[in-house]
Amino acid sequence: MKIIIVGGVAGGMSAATRLRRLMEDAEILVLEKGPFVSFANCGLPYYVSGEIADREALLVQTPESLSARFNLDVRPFHEVTAISPEKKTVTIKNEQGTFEETYDKLILSPGAKPLIPEMAGVAEATNVYSLRNVPDLDQIMAALAKKPATATVIGAGFIGLEMAENLSSRGIKVTVVEKAPHVLPPLDEEMAAFVQNELIRNDVRFITGESAQSFTEQGQKIVLTNGEVLQSDMTILSVGVRPESSLAKDAGIKIGLGGGIMVDETYQTSVSDIYAVGDAIVVKQQISEEDALIALASPANRQGRQVADVIACLKRSNRGSIGTAIVRVFDLAAASTGLSERTVKQSGLDYQVVHVSGKDHASYYPGASELTLKLVFEPKTGKLYGAQGVGGKGIDKRIDILATAIKGGLTIFDLPELEFTYAPPFGSAKDPVNMLGYAAINLSEGISDSIQWSQLKEAQEKGYQLLDVRNPEELANGRFPDALSIPLNQLRDRVSELDPTKAYIVSCHSGLRSYVAERLLKQKGFKVKNLDGAFALYKTVRPEELLYD
Amino acid sequence: MKIIIVGGVAGGMSAATRLRRLMEDAEILVLEKGPFVSFANCGLPYYVSGEIADREALLVQTPESLSARFNLDVRPFHEVTAISPEKKTVTIKNEQGTFEETYDKLILSPGAKPLIPEMAGVAEATNVYSLRNVPDLDQIMAALAKKPATATVIGAGFIGLEMAENLSSRGIKVTVVEKAPHVLPPLDEEMAAFVQNELIRNDVRFITGESAQSFTEQGQKIVLTNGEVLQSDMTILSVGVRPESSLAKDAGIKIGLGGGIMVDETYQTSVSDIYAVGDAIVVKQQISEEDALIALASPANRQGRQVADVIACLKRSNRGSIGTAIVRVFDLAAASTGLSERTVKQSGLDYQVVHVSGKDHASYYPGASELTLKLVFEPKTGKLYGAQGVGGKGIDKRIDILATAIKGGLTIFDLPELEFTYAPPFGSAKDPVNMLGYAAINLSEGISDSIQWSQLKEAQEKGYQLLDVRNPEELANGRFPDALSIPLNQLRDRVSELDPTKAYIVSCHSGLRSYVAERLLKQKGFKVKNLDGAFALYKTVRPEELLYD
Repeated sequence: MKIIIVGGVAGGMSAATRLRRLMEDAEILVLEKGPFVSFANCGLPYYVSGEIADREALLVQTPESLSARFNLDVRPFHEVTAISPEKKTVTIKNEQGTFEETYDKLILSPGAKPLIPEMAGVAEATNVYSLRNVPDLDQIMAALAKKPATATVIGAGFIGLEMAENLSSRGIKVTVVEKAPHVLPPLDEEMAAFVQNELIRNDVRFITGESAQSFTEQGQKIVLTNGEVLQSDMTILSVGVRPESSLAKDAGIKIGLGGGIMVDETYQTSVSDIYAVGDAIVVKQQISEEDALIALASPANRQGRQVADVIACLKRSNRGSIGTAIVRVFDLAAASTGLSERTVKQSGLDYQVVHVSGKDHASYYPGASELTLKLVFEPKTGKLYGAQGVGGKGIDKRIDILATAIKGGLTIFDLPELEFTYAPPFGSAKDPVNMLGYAAINLSEGISDSIQWSQLKEAQEKGYQLLDVRNPEELANGRFPDALSIPLNQLRDRVSELDPTKAYIVSCHSGLRSYVAERLLKQKGFKVKNLDGAFALYKTVRPEELLYD
Repeated sequence: MKIIIVGGVAGGMSAATRLRRLMEDAEILVLEKGPFVSFANCGLPYYVSGEIADREALLVQTPESLSARFNLDVRPFHEVTAISPEKKTVTIKNEQGTFEETYDKLILSPGAKPLIPEMAGVAEATNVYSLRNVPDLDQIMAALAKKPATATVIGAGFIGLEMAENLSSRGIKVTVVEKAPHVLPPLDEEMAAFVQNELIRNDVRFITGESAQSFTEQGQKIVLTNGEVLQSDMTILSVGVRPESSLAKDAGIKIGLGGGIMVDETYQTSVSDIYAVGDAIVVKQQISEEDALIALASPANRQGRQVADVIACLKRSNRGSIGTAIVRVFDLAAASTGLSERTVKQSGLDYQVVHVSGKDHASYYPGASELTLKLVFEPKTGKLYGAQGVGGKGIDKRIDILATAIKGGLTIFDLPELEFTYAPPFGSAKDPVNMLGYAAINLSEGISDSIQWSQLKEAQEKGYQLLDVRNPEELANGRFPDALSIPLNQLRDRVSELDPTKAYIVSCHSGLRSYVAERLLKQKGFKVKNLDGAFALYKTVRPEELLYD
């Protein structure tokens, strides 16, 4: 059997090596239009700062090593320009010219390409780059050799923020421009606010709700939609990617959402003997069961291996993806898995939200750092829709646990049951993930009612009285306008100061004491809600609305 | 309603505070025989080295703070000496004398007490300590003030090893004595071997397969079962705990396995209106469904909260525990969840084992550290029995993920599907947990056959030829006796050097290349097995059997 694989990075190379382990006698040809195969895509931004110092470290495999170990015929600089499903051939262009190869099975793993928005003057700009592969990186490194003083990153997604950090680490003054109302659009606003504060702390400017409209002076000036003009010695475009599917489309293969290649559960396209995997395909979002484009390394690798199994007649099917991602932004990590609150809301699903803050390990053991987790769930069944986390350490662990819980179909009722490794350097007896479960169950069972930070003002306007149960010395960190103040430990004795005809919202610093206050007041007959995330979350996302003495 | 809680640490205090949040009007009395409630049990060893510097940090709550916030009547130095289920009273002893209190509901959370084995001279020894609470710690700190030069830790479980590390950090020469054939008996031998090597690297001596037989010279000398005499300026006894259940037993409450208090799914004992939680109770091992004693903080806290829910008429049931634990031993972490191979084997269950080694994050990103994971599973159904991990970083994360997978009823077939947070500082596109799944599926589907390190010698004696596919320069790290050597990248060309009538075992450094070799040879018609964990694991557990040039 002769198998041709188009694209030699994550999905394609996983398919090729697995195929060899299953089909020693197959002829396996990997065609890669670029100069490198199997390179460390996700490591590229870290070479920009020098954090990854050795360029060779990014080149995981070479055609020679793949030939020696796996007897693969790997050909860089070989672009497939056409497919003829009838003849079962591909047309290949290389330096020498154009020729044809036949295949029995064809696997397309062409990946995705950077989206270049329509912007006047971008074609004339000489300092605009995107970062998707090693040649892109080499161009950026050449530009950096000219010592730019300022840089602009357009698009504040995961890669955009990595680039912002790594450019800033070189001493460059970086501005990030994001069209969405906040950086890191896959996260919800209040979680992204932690990241925005970290950018501020590290002297990276960000502009949200605006985009680049035009480039002038060969890219040295960027005019934004609000009219502001940015001086930019170098500009990184990082506004997302779209499936590299023109080859498939031209071959008559069915194309779906956002130009992605449609495949069935066994990665077969609409054309027989042609398969596709990786960033280029449309997948099933496992939680919403809707079509989705999920351009991430982990699913791509899995899909590559699975399509090899399928071709080798092992029973495999693509169960879909939930989408889990993380980014380090200076001393902060921000991660998400599954659906965001915004997505769930747009889908019209019944949902509730809970925030929990805690430490990555026992607070009495040195070096604990703050983290904040958010869970989006279905209150009746307890189904987990998605989770997000921000913090200094331990975010990857918590989101990985929650991703596992989502994949396993666990509910909020299972989260307190999870038994984690606990010793003071590693965790807490009640991990923040357990606490998420407890808090969500309290909401689901009506033991607690909460309102979100975004609902506070409206609730106050409707007559809710805010009651702050922090201690007097904590009020120096900032105060809510129009809040009553009774420290929690005095509340039982001072409950007569409250008006039983009024509805209350309680807040403390992080939400733990306010929940205790809520329970106390509820049992005394008051109508009361807990401000989810409390003062700390509110201050993160709306610091300007607080009062400071 | 009047509720009395016996024991004011993890389970008892979780019950008390949750009860107050649910039952504002209940009278809640917490009786603690020791001087402190709600202290950081698991932090005690770290105070020994000074890593936790502030004793106050260990005292999480005080009776005063619990009274102010939760209106709890918390009484330290109050020992319950008897229960009368007929009268519904407890007899309490304090400094003033003895008195009775009535209860409507009684919750027993007495914990577990250190096991003191029968040893001649232990009563006369003046330097033998155990560590279970703050007074124990104070005694140890007083002994340390006398600057002991040598210390012995008897029992190399989780706490024993923490004590060994923390005493060693003070410059004391520490010897650890363990009756089992290896340290850290909850783990299997080859995983514990990593820990043993770490002890050696840090100049902590360990003696396994022996116990302390007698103490002489008021404890200054310890005579072991093998006749060796240890000089010991101070000795820590850490050979395990047993349920503190005499109070319950005397009250006619049914006692089970190892003296543990029997409870039903709602934590009710055999006597009505008496409940029990925490280290003192017999729980269901969720995987084996057998009775078990699991003395860990995380289940104790959960049980305490759940029993409060039960008493407040919320629907809760104890689903059992799987047992997840971790220990830091100098620069290494070692953790386990679920059942060990030894336990599964003893139960007569059908099982297979797989080891995977990898890095905590992308190997091309600086600072990656080695980790080794072990999975025990049922090969037909793929059911996960248990997992263990050792390594520098990221062990807590992987074992927490696997604990979640076990609790969620996931199988080996689900592990590759898990989508984790991946960016170079945090993980890899194919996480070691995904790799565990791939490797286990290969075994389950007959794509790969493996033998374990412990079976190698026997297999060689039965005529299997060991084939080492490492590169020549790697052989300087040590060689297997009687091994053929053909580097993997030459194997395809040199396959004619092998004898088709012979059976082969292949090994490389970590098991990845040997698996590729296995697949190659299998497809060429050879009978071949992969040495699971390969050279690296073998060298860890049996270094003395290798040859060094």
